[in-house]
Amino acid sequence: MSRARNVLFIMCDQLRADYLSCYGHPVLHTPAIDSLAARGVRFERAFVQAGVCGASRMSFYTGRYNFSHGATWNFVPLPISERTLGDYLAPHGLDLALCGKTHYVPNVAEMKLRGIDPRSPFGESLMTGGFRTVVRHEGDLPVPRHFYNEYLRAKGYDTDNPWQHWANSASDASGHLVDGMAMRNAHLPARVPDADSETAFVTDAAIDYIREQGDAPWALHVSYIKPHWPYIVSAPYHDLYRGRYEHPVNRSDIEEQTLHPAVAAHRSLRACVSWAREETVRHVVPAYMGLIRQIDDHLGRLLATLETLGRLDDTLIVFTADHGDFLGDHGLGEKEILYDEAMRVPLIVVDPDARADATRGRVESRFAEAIDVVPTVLDALGLDTAPHIVEGRSLLPITRNEAVAWRDQAVAELDYSFLHMRTALGRPAHGCHATMIRTDDWKFVDWEGMRPQLFDLASDPREQRDLGADPRCAGVVEAMRVRLNDWRGARKRRTAYTHAEADAMLYPADKAGVMIGLW
Amino acid sequence: MSRARNVLFIMCDQLRADYLSCYGHPVLHTPAIDSLAARGVRFERAFVQAGVCGASRMSFYTGRYNFSHGATWNFVPLPISERTLGDYLAPHGLDLALCGKTHYVPNVAEMKLRGIDPRSPFGESLMTGGFRTVVRHEGDLPVPRHFYNEYLRAKGYDTDNPWQHWANSASDASGHLVDGMAMRNAHLPARVPDADSETAFVTDAAIDYIREQGDAPWALHVSYIKPHWPYIVSAPYHDLYRGRYEHPVNRSDIEEQTLHPAVAAHRSLRACVSWAREETVRHVVPAYMGLIRQIDDHLGRLLATLETLGRLDDTLIVFTADHGDFLGDHGLGEKEILYDEAMRVPLIVVDPDARADATRGRVESRFAEAIDVVPTVLDALGLDTAPHIVEGRSLLPITRNEAVAWRDQAVAELDYSFLHMRTALGRPAHGCHATMIRTDDWKFVDWEGMRPQLFDLASDPREQRDLGADPRCAGVVEAMRVRLNDWRGARKRRTAYTHAEADAMLYPADKAGVMIGLW
Repeated sequence: MSRARNVLFIMCDQLRADYLSCYGHPVLHTPAIDSLAARGVRFERAFVQAGVCGASRMSFYTGRYNFSHGATWNFVPLPISERTLGDYLAPHGLDLALCGKTHYVPNVAEMKLRGIDPRSPFGESLMTGGFRTVVRHEGDLPVPRHFYNEYLRAKGYDTDNPWQHWANSASDASGHLVDGMAMRNAHLPARVPDADSETAFVTDAAIDYIREQGDAPWALHVSYIKPHWPYIVSAPYHDLYRGRYEHPVNRSDIEEQTLHPAVAAHRSLRACVSWAREETVRHVVPAYMGLIRQIDDHLGRLLATLETLGRLDDTLIVFTADHGDFLGDHGLGEKEILYDEAMRVPLIVVDPDARADATRGRVESRFAEAIDVVPTVLDALGLDTAPHIVEGRSLLPITRNEAVAWRDQAVAELDYSFLHMRTALGRPAHGCHATMIRTDDWKFVDWEGMRPQLFDLASDPREQRDLGADPRCAGVVEAMRVRLNDWRGARKRRTAYTHAEADAMLYPADKAGVMIGLW
Repeated sequence: MSRARNVLFIMCDQLRADYLSCYGHPVLHTPAIDSLAARGVRFERAFVQAGVCGASRMSFYTGRYNFSHGATWNFVPLPISERTLGDYLAPHGLDLALCGKTHYVPNVAEMKLRGIDPRSPFGESLMTGGFRTVVRHEGDLPVPRHFYNEYLRAKGYDTDNPWQHWANSASDASGHLVDGMAMRNAHLPARVPDADSETAFVTDAAIDYIREQGDAPWALHVSYIKPHWPYIVSAPYHDLYRGRYEHPVNRSDIEEQTLHPAVAAHRSLRACVSWAREETVRHVVPAYMGLIRQIDDHLGRLLATLETLGRLDDTLIVFTADHGDFLGDHGLGEKEILYDEAMRVPLIVVDPDARADATRGRVESRFAEAIDVVPTVLDALGLDTAPHIVEGRSLLPITRNEAVAWRDQAVAELDYSFLHMRTALGRPAHGCHATMIRTDDWKFVDWEGMRPQLFDLASDPREQRDLGADPRCAGVVEAMRVRLNDWRGARKRRTAYTHAEADAMLYPADKAGVMIGLW
């Protein structure tokens, strides 16, 4: 193993930490991902900064909390002042290549305001979030080019939208086309074979890209859109786990008695209503597992390629997900709400450096956050980690077993302005923030204009008994508010000067010969 | 009087609220400014968002707190994503003209990152902060063009830097040139006559500009660099107040006994050491008063022009200052520290609309903030006030005597990363924030990493007895921290969508036909 020359940043979409064998899943076996855990450090308590694709990814890509970058929901663009991983790598001659999903949307209004032509090189970078597109795959979101549909059509899957009609549809018993978006169809195999699935397509593109780089250094984001819904998967994955595993739904009477009004309001969302039914859980979770196993198999191909090329020895590998999936826990579907099932994700860091040899296979319990990926990548490549802007921290002191003072909490946010629950709760568009602080002992969620949530994780690790309204916990709530205030106060907002530049700017007037206050 | 077609936004630099006769100064008579107070509403409790030129002005020009715009000190540029008053007016065909000072610096690094040519129209706007330069005058700061020096040289004041050698120098008793920067020279007249002073120059340019507009609507920022140091003024102003007034220095033994360590550290700054001497106060304050009276006389000319042209009837006039001046109070010189002498400024709003007739001459005690100027201007012109970005509030409901729920506090900030005291306190460049919350009853200042300041304004309006370390006030400190946390949490960071757009984006997936969570 040697110093990282290349970067492989792998992301899954909507993958819960506990649905991998290395994270303890009792039935689902994920040997490729497990092999990464064996080669690197597996973070047992890694949290995303938001429980929705776009907001979470903008924190992954900028190294900054939602509070700082402002892209707090899907389709809310980053301000053009925000810098992404690609912006940090480009000056060093390294393109950040993309195979898969980013959920990035350009800030067209700000580009127009500042006269940035989308077709100029600078504009192109802002249009893609600093990624160099190899193949972009955002499922069926509107993007300039639908690479996967082009691929499917070229292979003869001949409809207007083969993503929908082939990859995310099935044939029912009577041969009728049925929609993969409807969860009742989750037991059926997708109409495309595994080799033409979204996961295969993204993996193939990644393998080709890595091969094409030869001996040149590269940085690649391989970003699977799965196991995100539609919950439908090609054979044989559709049937691998059916009847073999029952998801232990995390609900209780205690939870119902202490449920927060915002969670109660959110439960009327269609996805929550569907997932609250036992039949949904029993019927859909096997497809979810199949999608994960499919990713693991294709990742196995990718890792085998790296090994063949010798790239396992000089590539920093980060494996993670943008958020989890409730799968009916807490009476919820989807993600968004700041429980661990949605916010805790797998995070494995394989640091090829010899200094990391002592930690290979280690399970790390210190808090990691999505914002740590940018500085970890920059640090691995020997680049400045821009600590005047980037709010995350390099994880390499942990992979290299160095003594380091570390954070004692993870923070995540929810801006539910665009969610159904906003209407139900009667909240204005600018007053829908919730902020989670999770420490060793407590999960605290501050809800703007409402009582907080509070869970005692020692006695209630599954976050069922909400103590946020319990007068006996007023002291804890107060202490958590102080933490929140400190956290908010520490956001990095003066981003125009590096710390070294700030140091050099002490006494600027004196240095310029302006003797202010001279008698 | 009729609806505002034009905007006159007048700013002084380093003008304490209590050094105007309409604000109660017992000796200094400022009839022109008083006439504005008689025509409009005078805000008795108006606060700037920062006690230093650049940071304060960026809040005036963006309508956002320092915490939100990030330009927390002189020469720290705004991110290019931030919008200034000029950016809001330009789409409506209205240039925001500038005569005088802005302390704006362009964010050259971000412009380069995004490929914005400083010579393009978009780049030019970013280079000037959205102002259309008539004459810019930043004293002797480095700017592309030193209009005032050009003027002086054209009039025969023939040195490399006539700003320094004529406008801000004097001749001593033996005829030697002495520097106006040295406060010991404050009793001497500046070498230029009043008609060629900085204040006259800026006023002349403003009068010419307004005349040139004829009947076309206009918006003009008249921004005097005075009474900011150098404390030296042309005859007869240098001698008007000498021996006629003694500044009642705000200091006491109680203050010394309870002084906050940060303030104690700041007192070793040269300007504080100088101003802590009685001789400095006695010697320099008369020049400060002369500079103010000089502004008032020239403003009288400007207002007479408006009257002659009929523009008093259809022009919104805002008169204010970017911060105050300690003049030795609290043992301090300059500003920066979050006491009222530095943070409280004059603010007069003359709303020409007939709906404001009932409030003319009113003294208003509700809190106003610098960030209110942008929305007040936009509101007066009938434009959208961009409440998804702008954090201030239009003051027109107050000038028009409309029932309105109002704020109960003012907030200001200090980032002392670039100040001497940082070294003395051993603080890192990214850990130098102080935040003030001033309510009716309390002044609270949260100092990062140190105990807070707390003053009971009912019993101690001059902020002498710091209760921040008094255990009997722990409850108040706690309550103020909760206020601070709430204030921080309410910062406007999702600026990409208007509230109406956010409302329209509810259920975006459903609207796009994506039935998430359908069984």
